[in-house]
Amino acid sequence: MSLLVVGSVALDSVETPFGARQDVLGGSATYFAAAASLLTKVSVVGVVGEDFPESQLQFLRARGVELDGLSTVRGKTFRWKGRYGFDLNAAETLDTQLNVFERFAPELGPRARKAERIFLGNIDPALQLRVLEQAERPRLVCADTMNYWIASKRAQLQELLPRVDVLMVNDAEVRQLAGESNVLKAAHAAQRMGAKAVVVKRGEYGALLVADGHSFYAPAFPLADVVDPTGAGDTFAGGFLGLLDRLDSSDPSALRQATVMGSTIASFTVEQFSLDRLRELDLAQVRQRFDSFRQLVHFDALPAHVA
Amino acid sequence: MSLLVVGSVALDSVETPFGARQDVLGGSATYFAAAASLLTKVSVVGVVGEDFPESQLQFLRARGVELDGLSTVRGKTFRWKGRYGFDLNAAETLDTQLNVFERFAPELGPRARKAERIFLGNIDPALQLRVLEQAERPRLVCADTMNYWIASKRAQLQELLPRVDVLMVNDAEVRQLAGESNVLKAAHAAQRMGAKAVVVKRGEYGALLVADGHSFYAPAFPLADVVDPTGAGDTFAGGFLGLLDRLDSSDPSALRQATVMGSTIASFTVEQFSLDRLRELDLAQVRQRFDSFRQLVHFDALPAHVA
Repeated sequence: MSLLVVGSVALDSVETPFGARQDVLGGSATYFAAAASLLTKVSVVGVVGEDFPESQLQFLRARGVELDGLSTVRGKTFRWKGRYGFDLNAAETLDTQLNVFERFAPELGPRARKAERIFLGNIDPALQLRVLEQAERPRLVCADTMNYWIASKRAQLQELLPRVDVLMVNDAEVRQLAGESNVLKAAHAAQRMGAKAVVVKRGEYGALLVADGHSFYAPAFPLADVVDPTGAGDTFAGGFLGLLDRLDSSDPSALRQATVMGSTIASFTVEQFSLDRLRELDLAQVRQRFDSFRQLVHFDALPAHVA
Repeated sequence: MSLLVVGSVALDSVETPFGARQDVLGGSATYFAAAASLLTKVSVVGVVGEDFPESQLQFLRARGVELDGLSTVRGKTFRWKGRYGFDLNAAETLDTQLNVFERFAPELGPRARKAERIFLGNIDPALQLRVLEQAERPRLVCADTMNYWIASKRAQLQELLPRVDVLMVNDAEVRQLAGESNVLKAAHAAQRMGAKAVVVKRGEYGALLVADGHSFYAPAFPLADVVDPTGAGDTFAGGFLGLLDRLDSSDPSALRQATVMGSTIASFTVEQFSLDRLRELDLAQVRQRFDSFRQLVHFDALPAHVA
């Protein structure tokens, strides 16, 4: 079992109705690794600038995350600044400074090349393809993308999709990709473009898995206190792929459990700012909430006399 | 077993991205009865004008719906005109003509007074209270309401809620009622106002049941073709109460099954305009989709070695 993530490591400044934080740890690869490392061995490929506070990643090292592929180069670390209103489903981006991330050209070391499962975080699809060219024998490839790439790099995305086992996007992204407002039809269209399965992340409403011959819906865990939704999608991906890697399977049962694991870890992420909740999270807490999910959605079959 | 609905019987004019219909059958009591009558005996209390095309209700009579409480009075029938965009979760009301509904004062006949379960459709809470004053021994009372009453008749709503077993509202309504943006906190606030349980309808995202000591989430059934969402909420209520009445129970298992039954029948409603899909629906089709719901949300427990 081995899991690779390629994506951003960033410093975020975030404002929500419940508070604000400046230059805190963020980035898709960081969130992903924090979640997945609760379940399996993860390698990170990414880039930071000379200003990056390395000590912040210590908790990932302590969980066995392999950070050799995280290179430090001249310049400043990628910075994102955003704001959420009471509708915590949508962030308003106030500022994006790509900095060293602008020239990011992922290079996989010997171990990363042999990864069995790969998560391609939300980066230029040309770079996502570049990662797959270096990978030797991935058994499962999962990719995220965003509106910007769907609009500006459609050709590369269409080249990528047939090599993707699980496309993991939100409602708006799958609709934009397919040019279709109905989410189920849009997911089917993405499958026709080549993705074997599609996971549509729907924020506080949960996630829909559309796979070969079966569909599955996991609600989001109902929470009384959501403080900061940043990173929910990437920790969803981390829980999802972390569990598939741990189970060493992607059969229908594993895909369903992985979707719930994604929702489970994402539900912790949003309880505090940045990666604060993930730092202290352990697998026993995760298992407990996974079990609560079973309670949340369980119902009995109809008795035979209702006919 | 006996179920009473008090609400509107209307003529709707509806426009969606998929077509338009003029003066078609609508109204909360009509939708409710069409759904609930698949499962149990339903009585309707409402009012129509002299212009109402009685023959349109023939399919309800054929299903055993008791319409003695539907009175015809001088004047025109309640008319609603609305439009939906591609976001089918929210209707834009273009015109409302209350007509005979403006002077509606529900009177329960001898059989209606003895109903064991009552659905108070979305009418003035003062009228909802008037219904309960006439009811002799209801074992379960379920009430809907809307933004207009929450804003203008709060005192009457607060008098009603302690007499309500299940408050059935949408996201925006429970938020407005509680003055709280978080849906789970808002549902708990509604319980503190007196409602024993709360069902929050979330359109295409499903429904959340918050009851005494347990919560349950049913997704909406993923549909490739949604034509007209009008009546989805009232048929949800009809499926919900119809099943509770049929099972003669409101224990936790029955409440969960009822929530899924609500989602199931609502998922048929939206497949065609007006009550067109409900007219031809039978319990065998309903059972089959109920079973598909079980497939949709089923996942296995984590193996013990993931710890």
